[in-house]
Amino acid sequence: MKIAVYGMGRFGSFWASLLSERFCVAGYSRSGRVFPDNVKRIKEEQLGEYDTVFLCCAINAVEEVCRRIAPLLKPEAVVIDTCSVKVAPAKLMENLLPKSCGIIATHPMFGPDSGKNGVEGLPIVFSPIRDKGGCFKFWHDVFAEMKLDIHQMTPDEHDSEAAFTQGVTHFIGRVLNELELKNSPIATLGYQKLQEIVEQTCNDPLQLFLDLQKFNPHTEEMRVRLKKALDDTIKLF
Amino acid sequence: MKIAVYGMGRFGSFWASLLSERFCVAGYSRSGRVFPDNVKRIKEEQLGEYDTVFLCCAINAVEEVCRRIAPLLKPEAVVIDTCSVKVAPAKLMENLLPKSCGIIATHPMFGPDSGKNGVEGLPIVFSPIRDKGGCFKFWHDVFAEMKLDIHQMTPDEHDSEAAFTQGVTHFIGRVLNELELKNSPIATLGYQKLQEIVEQTCNDPLQLFLDLQKFNPHTEEMRVRLKKALDDTIKLF
Repeated sequence: MKIAVYGMGRFGSFWASLLSERFCVAGYSRSGRVFPDNVKRIKEEQLGEYDTVFLCCAINAVEEVCRRIAPLLKPEAVVIDTCSVKVAPAKLMENLLPKSCGIIATHPMFGPDSGKNGVEGLPIVFSPIRDKGGCFKFWHDVFAEMKLDIHQMTPDEHDSEAAFTQGVTHFIGRVLNELELKNSPIATLGYQKLQEIVEQTCNDPLQLFLDLQKFNPHTEEMRVRLKKALDDTIKLF
Repeated sequence: MKIAVYGMGRFGSFWASLLSERFCVAGYSRSGRVFPDNVKRIKEEQLGEYDTVFLCCAINAVEEVCRRIAPLLKPEAVVIDTCSVKVAPAKLMENLLPKSCGIIATHPMFGPDSGKNGVEGLPIVFSPIRDKGGCFKFWHDVFAEMKLDIHQMTPDEHDSEAAFTQGVTHFIGRVLNELELKNSPIATLGYQKLQEIVEQTCNDPLQLFLDLQKFNPHTEEMRVRLKKALDDTIKLF
């Protein structure tokens, strides 16, 4: 089983390094990033040599990446995305990749920070899209062996849950960031938690925030309800 | 030194019990609450026997309480409020209590939950208003002996800091409470912190939230800026 990771950014590097404990892993990156040990750098044209390709690109890049890799993949390849939204990438993979390819949509809900002491017990969302060559069972088993906490659901179930969990958290973090909240000698414990949320969400690239909102069909409802709740609360005064 | 605590709610009871480790403490309560051991129940008319009176009533009750106790206090009494806003209670105490009384405005930034394992190192805001009989030094020394983390500032400095720390936290907590956020198998760490903020702020009485906003002159600016930040962020989509 030869595995390629397409997109060696912060998450892609971490993921490739993690998979290299079990498999022979190669990585493709547009830029000249430093690769982890055990992960071989390949050119885009070499993707056809790999059995499973993980997409670790930005959400907004999935369409272009699918178009680019579709003619390069081997017919029986399995493609697995790792984006933080699921409906849009799942549809794009289904529509743009060869019909002979297996497809799984996943959302590993951790990264190099939360997974730095191991990923045991950390959640991964697992959405089976197109089964080829037993790829659903194979990868489910691998994630189980990695002791990940596997949550199988449809892309829409994921996006609906995520809009009101991760989506609302990032939204509040970005809104509060505009207020430029400062440290205070009289900070309460609750305020310190609020500051941690701002730091954590704004530590992620702005593009991730924009993509989480734009490409998740359920975030609009979240934003409408959040605005109404704020306007109603302001009207109390 | 005989001390009375006026208002034996959740915080008043805790505070009276804490002070009773050092002083002879009595408490007055409108209702028939259970008092801590070592705290003697007194009638309102008996307040004239006490050297220092701590106000542990609701913010919106300070005016009425000052009017009620003004004719009862001994001339050299010291009155110290403990409200979560400072400008309004400080002004009311100055205007309504006898000119012969010492006045200190404080905000002990803890309660029976955060102080259950001791109050050492916990913050208290200390605003000297009217010094009589060396009361500023006396109480500053007592709080220092209790190993509280004393922050001396003016009532306006307190309210300005608090509007953008405690005030914004409670506001966000109440707004998010309207969204009825649920537990989720795919909850991120940030989302769990957000839920903790909602639980913690909405565990406090609604009246405290309303008073924190209404009686702190700086919360309006906070609300205006928060609304603008949310509207601007929504416009991105």
